[in-house]
Amino acid sequence: MDKPAFLAACRALLGEPHVIADEAGMAPYLRDWRGRFTGRALAVLRPADTEQVAAIVRLCVQARVPIVPQGGNTGLVLGSVPDAGGGSVLLSLSRMRTIRQVDAVNRTMTVDAGVILQQAQEAAAAQGCLFPLSLAAEGSCTIGGNLSTNAGGTAVLRYGNTRELCLGLEVVTAQGEVWSGLRGLRKDNTGYDLRDLFIGAEGTLGIITGAVLKLYPQPKATVTALAAMESPAQASRLLSIMQDHCAASLTGFELMSAFCLQLVAKHFPALQQPLPTHYRQYALLELSSSESEAHAAGLLERALGAALADGAAQDAVVASSAAQSRGLWDLREHIPLAQAADGKNIKHDISLPVSSIAEFIAATEPQLQAAFPGCQLVCFGHLGDGNLHFNVAPPPGVAHEDFLRSQGAVNRVVHDSVAVFGGSISAEHGIGALKRDELARYKSPVELTLMRAIKAALDPLGLMNPGKIL
Amino acid sequence: MDKPAFLAACRALLGEPHVIADEAGMAPYLRDWRGRFTGRALAVLRPADTEQVAAIVRLCVQARVPIVPQGGNTGLVLGSVPDAGGGSVLLSLSRMRTIRQVDAVNRTMTVDAGVILQQAQEAAAAQGCLFPLSLAAEGSCTIGGNLSTNAGGTAVLRYGNTRELCLGLEVVTAQGEVWSGLRGLRKDNTGYDLRDLFIGAEGTLGIITGAVLKLYPQPKATVTALAAMESPAQASRLLSIMQDHCAASLTGFELMSAFCLQLVAKHFPALQQPLPTHYRQYALLELSSSESEAHAAGLLERALGAALADGAAQDAVVASSAAQSRGLWDLREHIPLAQAADGKNIKHDISLPVSSIAEFIAATEPQLQAAFPGCQLVCFGHLGDGNLHFNVAPPPGVAHEDFLRSQGAVNRVVHDSVAVFGGSISAEHGIGALKRDELARYKSPVELTLMRAIKAALDPLGLMNPGKIL
Repeated sequence: MDKPAFLAACRALLGEPHVIADEAGMAPYLRDWRGRFTGRALAVLRPADTEQVAAIVRLCVQARVPIVPQGGNTGLVLGSVPDAGGGSVLLSLSRMRTIRQVDAVNRTMTVDAGVILQQAQEAAAAQGCLFPLSLAAEGSCTIGGNLSTNAGGTAVLRYGNTRELCLGLEVVTAQGEVWSGLRGLRKDNTGYDLRDLFIGAEGTLGIITGAVLKLYPQPKATVTALAAMESPAQASRLLSIMQDHCAASLTGFELMSAFCLQLVAKHFPALQQPLPTHYRQYALLELSSSESEAHAAGLLERALGAALADGAAQDAVVASSAAQSRGLWDLREHIPLAQAADGKNIKHDISLPVSSIAEFIAATEPQLQAAFPGCQLVCFGHLGDGNLHFNVAPPPGVAHEDFLRSQGAVNRVVHDSVAVFGGSISAEHGIGALKRDELARYKSPVELTLMRAIKAALDPLGLMNPGKIL
Repeated sequence: MDKPAFLAACRALLGEPHVIADEAGMAPYLRDWRGRFTGRALAVLRPADTEQVAAIVRLCVQARVPIVPQGGNTGLVLGSVPDAGGGSVLLSLSRMRTIRQVDAVNRTMTVDAGVILQQAQEAAAAQGCLFPLSLAAEGSCTIGGNLSTNAGGTAVLRYGNTRELCLGLEVVTAQGEVWSGLRGLRKDNTGYDLRDLFIGAEGTLGIITGAVLKLYPQPKATVTALAAMESPAQASRLLSIMQDHCAASLTGFELMSAFCLQLVAKHFPALQQPLPTHYRQYALLELSSSESEAHAAGLLERALGAALADGAAQDAVVASSAAQSRGLWDLREHIPLAQAADGKNIKHDISLPVSSIAEFIAATEPQLQAAFPGCQLVCFGHLGDGNLHFNVAPPPGVAHEDFLRSQGAVNRVVHDSVAVFGGSISAEHGIGALKRDELARYKSPVELTLMRAIKAALDPLGLMNPGKIL
């Protein structure tokens, strides 16, 4: 089948307006979120429903055309854009935005893959439930993308990654068949866990078209605090103390180095910094209560009191209003914006055993300083999950663009150290095309062999998001 | 390689005492837990460590000898015993009982697959942590078996199934290679989720030899209550109210029909029944608090008060001591024993969306009565997880052994109804050899094709626990 015949068949399946083949129309789908790369494609296809997705896949199998599935295209690892070859189609799930069902008694929600995360949050809230997944791109990322990358975010400490928030899936296989696994069951031991295999596979094994998501009761109250300490080791100890006192009521624990807050102060001077700025580390804590604001506040104060007495924190301030609470989260959420305003840096999305984080930082920072004297560490993240955004900014006076040429060497220092401490080179962003070579470097041959065997078994023609992960 | 040569090679690898080939020595390994079936084997092999497991698998590959892995042999679906052919080896992991590490800061524990569940619980407790998996066989089942069957139990409502309690695995592949995936990370998005694929695969894809398990803070206090109501629908509503009030503090919610408690009263008259016996349904509730006994008791009383006011419960009693609490759990835990004392019945381990449970029971019981007039339903289980043990006892006066001849027909009524309501025919026990034909009946062709493709990819020679699941 030649290109015109293939596109004609696509148009016959989807209707003329949903096959975009002109450069201008395709452009927003082909450029990655960070604007670092623009791929090429035969066409952008916008199916209306699962059956159309399946029909397109069958057509692509027939014509041997590779498929790059895309949700909100907010990924950070070049997982949802095609390569420069121009031989694949981009399959956008953006028209599939139906909340199929909210079941408040079963505490589940069944959605199309193209539903925007925020739309899912709102649909749950409308039924008095919480869909806890929360991350910076929630206004534009989709559930299908969240699932395909097993997205993390700020609520993982309490509710887990996207994988833990999903009970069932609907998937179009690489053969263009529909696997209807939309089960709303907490327990189901009937064979292999296909669900968790498609989750996190970044579209390389099949296309997620729908999902059953877990919902939770809405907390009655949430309280927030900022604590200060001198070292990551103290922050880890504070985490332990908070978990011992609060268990599942501790719903957020974010680490921010002093340098991160200095960057925020520099670029967003209007944001209030409620603690003295001379400490080295800060932790943002969030507690949720199913009971009352008074309960949450009392518990937080008791736990913080214990931490201060223990020496795990030197100072702390509790937000006394929703506005103050918002202000504390604003500090955390403005770190990436402040980084961007300050110029590009070299980013790492790593995770480690929580018990190794302090030692990892203590070991890795001197290595970076030895190799790149004067470089500046922008270290923050979800300490409760062992997940650090361990970014490296240039030494003062060095142009950011010049420093970016050291990216490979900086990655090597950081990722080698991550490997030494038993960590992961991609905690929550996935692999995509960006980290594919790094994955091959750090995964064991046995693990790579297992992954390749699964890929070959489920996608023998190699048409599903080629060049990603493997 | 002939049989004597193969056994000689096994002895050379493991040492003489760890290759058992005589009938009497093999007998306890070959008989299933419920005593319904005894398989045959070439030999029972008892490797000391992961390297010996890998060496045995390589030898079996060379000799084309199938392998049946076994932990505590407490499974309920004939998953851990060989078939009657006698051509396979039984590989017992019972010598691999080392707790490799407890990391109280990372809240993880690394264990050999042969560690007994209770041993794991105790090792965690010794470090002030909780390993929450809890089930009837905990004194003899192993972590490897728990993982291979994705075991459930009584703490799933709060802590999830075994899958959710595992961060990393060590697996000997079907090729006899060791995959060292013992990562203690809460976030790791580096490729396909091999961990969740081996978990629940019942040894058909490889042999789990070690695991990193999640630990939790020990609750400071636990309180228990028994509530009574007229219908499963009210019990579901009580669950909703309890979760709204208590969120993650609700750590147990077990449903028991009046008939279950009558069976317990009949066979264990010494156990106290603290509520009037004229209600139709009873729910056992457990709350845990990270704060104090007073906090847990206050929360439980407020939530139960709301439920009584709502009409979701007609009556309730709160245990006022640890002994009373134990007494309530004793009622629940004696249901299986009372069933056994009463004679064999036809068991089903099913799950449903919580929102469908009342309707499922209301629809299925009349179908059973129509087909088997006078049969008696022994319905109890983990309502909070949607998991019912929906067992069918013979009509009064009908011999239990006679009734068992209707097993296939009873299964058909129950499982067909489960399928109608979107449930699972195996919630927590797995498939093994016992439910293999049922699985083939109820799974979609697409799902079976995907599972077979994975099996063929990872175990192309079909040597790993043949005849189980697929």
